[in-house]
Amino acid sequence: MVTPAVVVDRGTLDANLRAMADSAAHRGIALRPHGKTHKSAEIARRQLALGAAGLTVATVGEAEAFAAAGVSDIFIAYPVWADAARSGRLRDLAGRIQLSVGVDSAAGVRELAAALAGAPAQVLVEVDCGLRRSGVAPADAGAVAAAADAAGLPVAGVFTFPGHSYAPGAPVPAAEDEAAALTAGSASLADAGLPGPVRSGGSTPSASLSLGPASDGPVTELRPGVYAFNDAQQVVLGVCAVDQVALAVLATVVSVPTAGRFILDSGAKVLGQDRPAWAPGHGLLPGYPDAVITGLWEHHAVVRHQAGQPAPRAGDQVVVLPNHVCTVMNLVDSVYVAEDGQVVDVWPVTARGRNT
Amino acid sequence: MVTPAVVVDRGTLDANLRAMADSAAHRGIALRPHGKTHKSAEIARRQLALGAAGLTVATVGEAEAFAAAGVSDIFIAYPVWADAARSGRLRDLAGRIQLSVGVDSAAGVRELAAALAGAPAQVLVEVDCGLRRSGVAPADAGAVAAAADAAGLPVAGVFTFPGHSYAPGAPVPAAEDEAAALTAGSASLADAGLPGPVRSGGSTPSASLSLGPASDGPVTELRPGVYAFNDAQQVVLGVCAVDQVALAVLATVVSVPTAGRFILDSGAKVLGQDRPAWAPGHGLLPGYPDAVITGLWEHHAVVRHQAGQPAPRAGDQVVVLPNHVCTVMNLVDSVYVAEDGQVVDVWPVTARGRNT
Repeated sequence: MVTPAVVVDRGTLDANLRAMADSAAHRGIALRPHGKTHKSAEIARRQLALGAAGLTVATVGEAEAFAAAGVSDIFIAYPVWADAARSGRLRDLAGRIQLSVGVDSAAGVRELAAALAGAPAQVLVEVDCGLRRSGVAPADAGAVAAAADAAGLPVAGVFTFPGHSYAPGAPVPAAEDEAAALTAGSASLADAGLPGPVRSGGSTPSASLSLGPASDGPVTELRPGVYAFNDAQQVVLGVCAVDQVALAVLATVVSVPTAGRFILDSGAKVLGQDRPAWAPGHGLLPGYPDAVITGLWEHHAVVRHQAGQPAPRAGDQVVVLPNHVCTVMNLVDSVYVAEDGQVVDVWPVTARGRNT
Repeated sequence: MVTPAVVVDRGTLDANLRAMADSAAHRGIALRPHGKTHKSAEIARRQLALGAAGLTVATVGEAEAFAAAGVSDIFIAYPVWADAARSGRLRDLAGRIQLSVGVDSAAGVRELAAALAGAPAQVLVEVDCGLRRSGVAPADAGAVAAAADAAGLPVAGVFTFPGHSYAPGAPVPAAEDEAAALTAGSASLADAGLPGPVRSGGSTPSASLSLGPASDGPVTELRPGVYAFNDAQQVVLGVCAVDQVALAVLATVVSVPTAGRFILDSGAKVLGQDRPAWAPGHGLLPGYPDAVITGLWEHHAVVRHQAGQPAPRAGDQVVVLPNHVCTVMNLVDSVYVAEDGQVVDVWPVTARGRNT
């Protein structure tokens, strides 16, 4: 295989998809996986076949790509600004699929309603559960919902993203924040006379902790993305084991300039550049547990290891688990699919680069 | 224009290309721009029309893309591991263009010679001038050259990358390191009886400081890449002014959740994720000088600004200068080209994703 190559292990992928589907079903929570992670029509079809309620995406362009691939129920979980360049595309989507769109302001709602011009789509109000990104304070959800109602847009409920779950020890409090924000946001909608049924949350680190409505819990729907593959971040956070990571970058050792250092051809243009302060390096090398990717350039990964520990030689191929799979999938046009160590297929990355 | 969009200002681009071409010519140094920055056949043609000696690339795939676009002299400035998956491609390139390839080990040289199987290509030995990435110590260049000579590969000279120029105050000492390493590496080649004429260096922060052979200087060739566009990093380093940055990301304000914070749709999937410790944020907003991009997710840039300072409103479009243009160009399939504020063309990113 010519390196650097992105390789997906189909058996591990399917096990990850099934485990999350089963976990959500057991709790009585709908699963609406986030397609921005994989951007793959093939994987979306597998998620839907396992009972997913629909797909989540981040952009109008991703929605178009998945709609073209046959996905019929899509939530753009993003405060889309529905300007003139997007209005025709949104109307077209609304006419073809069950479309839901995120909103977090009265101004955004009015722009969206004007863009849709009566085409059928529902909105969910984004509430901030502590990430301090987009989304209104939960108590303000009702005001945004009222604006939507006044503009003729049905309000399906509230959503939030507990992305502050991405730190050691953070998943439990982030899941608690998610529950509190969805409960408060939902109450704000009810106070406004618009009791939408959906309370949508979920990130991969917190998704298994979310309490569903089976016990009258706060979460009716989950939108994790990374769980399909897992990655080095999830391993470091303790969310999964190394053998539950379904995506790897195969790299070649191109240089061993000195003892204790070797260079891989898997640079930032394939591994991505996510490196939170709590990550030990720019990815993990399962075959060389003491080795650390200490430096990352566009086409070089610099790996340091202890003298005397096993190390690969120039020309060897090495498996790297990237820190964050979502950025990796957005860098390549296709991925190799392996089963029992053999390449059995190549999947296109259907929605790569669909940012608008 | 639908956002996020990458926009190249043609006038600024052409001025940047001409300034570096003139500067190198004035010093008697050949210019071989690095195509990994722009990955654009259109821009490569402009660089060659301004007198560039040829093009530099990082991968065999980039070389193939530029060769297909008509570039006839290409240096792969990378210790290519010429395994079976690359050998036919290298032979094909060697038969079509003037091909030069980087090497930094006797093992790599032997692999390359076997792959080429007599097809004509020359090598340059990579020496490390302080970056501690790939490359041998300058004194060891002769041994690698001797291996190349024994394997039947012509040795054109030595090359280095002073990438440790990327820090405040670092360009001058990095250029001094570059000069010393190229001089020592060249002497090592001469000692081995293989006095290749090329001493190739250059990064954008250090390129204007490199001393050429007009005064018997240490550098005969420069390989800067970023200079074509410049970026926020170059502004912060003092290498260029804001109005010399030829590439911007146009973004829309999608949310203003609270006073002092607004959210742009230019996330990591278009801005890239380079953020050295010395950069003030994930890019610069020339229209709002006090604003800082403090957080970057895949589709959200979180911007903080001082209360009372001018700030855009929801729906406004905002210009962002990314930290590092090389990763930006690798994220999009095409760029808009503007002249006097009007879009006049769209250029494909010819070699996007050509990592292998």
